[in-house]
Amino acid sequence: MAGSSRSYINSRRLREALVESGRFGRSPPVRVERYEDLDLTKGVSRPTGSEADKLVRDYAVKLMEDAGLEVRVDVVGNIFGRLEGARTRVGTVMTGSHLDSVINGGQFDGALGVFGAIEAVRSLVEEGFVNERPIEIVVFTGEEGSAFKPSLLGSSVLTGKLRVEEALSARNYEGVTLEEALERIGYKGDFVKGLDDVEYMVELHVEQGPILWKERIPIGVVENITGIAWLAATVEGEANHAGTTPMTMRRDALVAAAEVITFVSKRAREIGPTTVGTVGRLNVYPNGVNVIPGRVDMGIDIRDVVQENMLKLKEEVEEALKQLEIKYGVKVNVETLFTHKPAPLSQEVVNTIEKAAIQVGVRAKRMNSGAGHDSQNMAEKVKTGMIFVPSVRGVSHSPLEWTDWNDVERGVQVLKETLKLLSSKL
Amino acid sequence: MAGSSRSYINSRRLREALVESGRFGRSPPVRVERYEDLDLTKGVSRPTGSEADKLVRDYAVKLMEDAGLEVRVDVVGNIFGRLEGARTRVGTVMTGSHLDSVINGGQFDGALGVFGAIEAVRSLVEEGFVNERPIEIVVFTGEEGSAFKPSLLGSSVLTGKLRVEEALSARNYEGVTLEEALERIGYKGDFVKGLDDVEYMVELHVEQGPILWKERIPIGVVENITGIAWLAATVEGEANHAGTTPMTMRRDALVAAAEVITFVSKRAREIGPTTVGTVGRLNVYPNGVNVIPGRVDMGIDIRDVVQENMLKLKEEVEEALKQLEIKYGVKVNVETLFTHKPAPLSQEVVNTIEKAAIQVGVRAKRMNSGAGHDSQNMAEKVKTGMIFVPSVRGVSHSPLEWTDWNDVERGVQVLKETLKLLSSKL
Repeated sequence: MAGSSRSYINSRRLREALVESGRFGRSPPVRVERYEDLDLTKGVSRPTGSEADKLVRDYAVKLMEDAGLEVRVDVVGNIFGRLEGARTRVGTVMTGSHLDSVINGGQFDGALGVFGAIEAVRSLVEEGFVNERPIEIVVFTGEEGSAFKPSLLGSSVLTGKLRVEEALSARNYEGVTLEEALERIGYKGDFVKGLDDVEYMVELHVEQGPILWKERIPIGVVENITGIAWLAATVEGEANHAGTTPMTMRRDALVAAAEVITFVSKRAREIGPTTVGTVGRLNVYPNGVNVIPGRVDMGIDIRDVVQENMLKLKEEVEEALKQLEIKYGVKVNVETLFTHKPAPLSQEVVNTIEKAAIQVGVRAKRMNSGAGHDSQNMAEKVKTGMIFVPSVRGVSHSPLEWTDWNDVERGVQVLKETLKLLSSKL
Repeated sequence: MAGSSRSYINSRRLREALVESGRFGRSPPVRVERYEDLDLTKGVSRPTGSEADKLVRDYAVKLMEDAGLEVRVDVVGNIFGRLEGARTRVGTVMTGSHLDSVINGGQFDGALGVFGAIEAVRSLVEEGFVNERPIEIVVFTGEEGSAFKPSLLGSSVLTGKLRVEEALSARNYEGVTLEEALERIGYKGDFVKGLDDVEYMVELHVEQGPILWKERIPIGVVENITGIAWLAATVEGEANHAGTTPMTMRRDALVAAAEVITFVSKRAREIGPTTVGTVGRLNVYPNGVNVIPGRVDMGIDIRDVVQENMLKLKEEVEEALKQLEIKYGVKVNVETLFTHKPAPLSQEVVNTIEKAAIQVGVRAKRMNSGAGHDSQNMAEKVKTGMIFVPSVRGVSHSPLEWTDWNDVERGVQVLKETLKLLSSKL
């Protein structure tokens, strides 16, 4: 095929690896009527350090070794599978994602970026492609934070944002430290990996949102990863009898909180097209039908790739919460749990992914990531890009997460082509 | 004291009975900083059929027998302590309340009406008062519904609104039937009590609301017991990733529900001075900070002594819930759990209680009851009245429920005087 560098991958093998890996930590089936047509009603649960985490790691390591990669595990359990390059003294092209999952999550979230990278490298090797730069597959420990906080743990250590000791002493819901958990599953390595010899990072991931699926575009090229702020707010009123307390004598914490729920949604719509705001968690106390709510706890998630807008919404919500004190006679406490700045990705890698998509012959769209990813840490140290594939209905962190096999395949083809281009750049 | 029928009671004995009875089912102390000045931070838990229920019943029975009353227990565990009257063939004056409690409730809710009645009768007997009509103290089974549904169980059977078999086969949270539970504690009687020989009912109770306490009036004379409607609503939207789902693509169940929370409160204020509406129970699913709420369950409590207003608010709330479907693309299900009509009490008894208060020399105020009581059942069959005493800060169904001893005493004095007046009416 003259002039074409069109990538072919072994789709059957890729699909087998993804289906196989999706068995580890799979929950018993649940029926969800509305999504019956998806025929995918079982969730994946692979918190870091679990038996399922060990099994899926073992499987990935086996595939990497079969592909001829040299596998090493660092001190916090990040796995690296290295394919040496034709040249020495040139920076590595890193690619990969994570294998841990949320509880009852989807099978592609993270796993696609790992097994997709393995397939891409395997087929590069098989077709006799000569990579000038080394290519290194990475499996990050604890991206989701479903067992050990903080989330993005492995990449935070790798990029020096989190100290090794701090990471290893984190405890899961059973009080087990990360160090103990990694030793238990045999993934406590003995070296601290650095990034001095790494030039590029590219991560393939499911979008986890509805944009590509709705617009029927197979490839998203991520330009920015969203900034995130989490607020925890407590509204304290007075619990009292719902029948005997006249409306004028109430300090109803839920009526006060409702105003902020409405405000968050309204202002997120107004501030900017990429601004989102969500009251996702809300607990009412004492939560009896005939008792006026005495306290409401809320968890508020605010995001934007535009830092200014994210901070604007955050400040406005804090102010709206404080205003409840005057308007409703309640007491309000607001705490910022964390603020992550938006992470712009490398324009060089973005351009390369677009070029790869053209070579593969698929449509691609520049977009932003509304979810956090290990790549946002990597972007602070090396030239980083992300490839998104569509999530059916935009569903994620759910047993109902799905990506069509065609889209899976095209994503891996674009990743493979991107690795070819990046590893040839000198 | 010429012309005066002023009532004296044995305050020390009354207080002893109330303090003693308040030990049964008392929880370990809890500290609640804001109410430290109340020095009352331990709750009472006496679900029907519990060991604590048995102990407090035994104590009440002992006091009734000590006072010379003839004690009988009916088929659903209602206890009756009878003082024969000078005349036969005249209707009985019944008085009493309940001894069961909510979990971690207050010590006066119900118990005041029982031990207050016992003290009133004891002191009537001691001062040689001759009652023309029989006086009968009643202890209703299961007023609160904290173990067996429905609430107001004993009075519902007594008034023929609930069949005996249905009541006895009700199961508590442990799956035990009321029949088994009553047998276990020795309060399963063998006769069905009727009301044919009863003329009057008067119940002393704590207000459970803030009105008397705020207005510093010691006695409330209840004219109406509120009507109550309970709605259970489910708002179903779509759970999704809070970061990757643009605001315009959301069906957020909590944002939709917030509109109804605000609506209930706003319209209850507008419809009438005695109208109240409360969203007391609200659960969010899946309730993760970074997940758009996919479902919200709400329990809504609507009350008014004016039936028309209660039904108006109920219909408006149902309509507002339905409107969410159009506005937010959610699916809404609304169910009426029950509707109790407002119960007007007997003007004859109301006038008698007012007269009694004047004779005792304390201020009294006509008012409505925003809480449900056994008296609302009794009012359908016999001439019924209720005497309220102030609840400090209006707090009820809480360890922090309290009534000042002075108010307790005045309430029992007014009850005693009312019993004198009613039992003399021929």
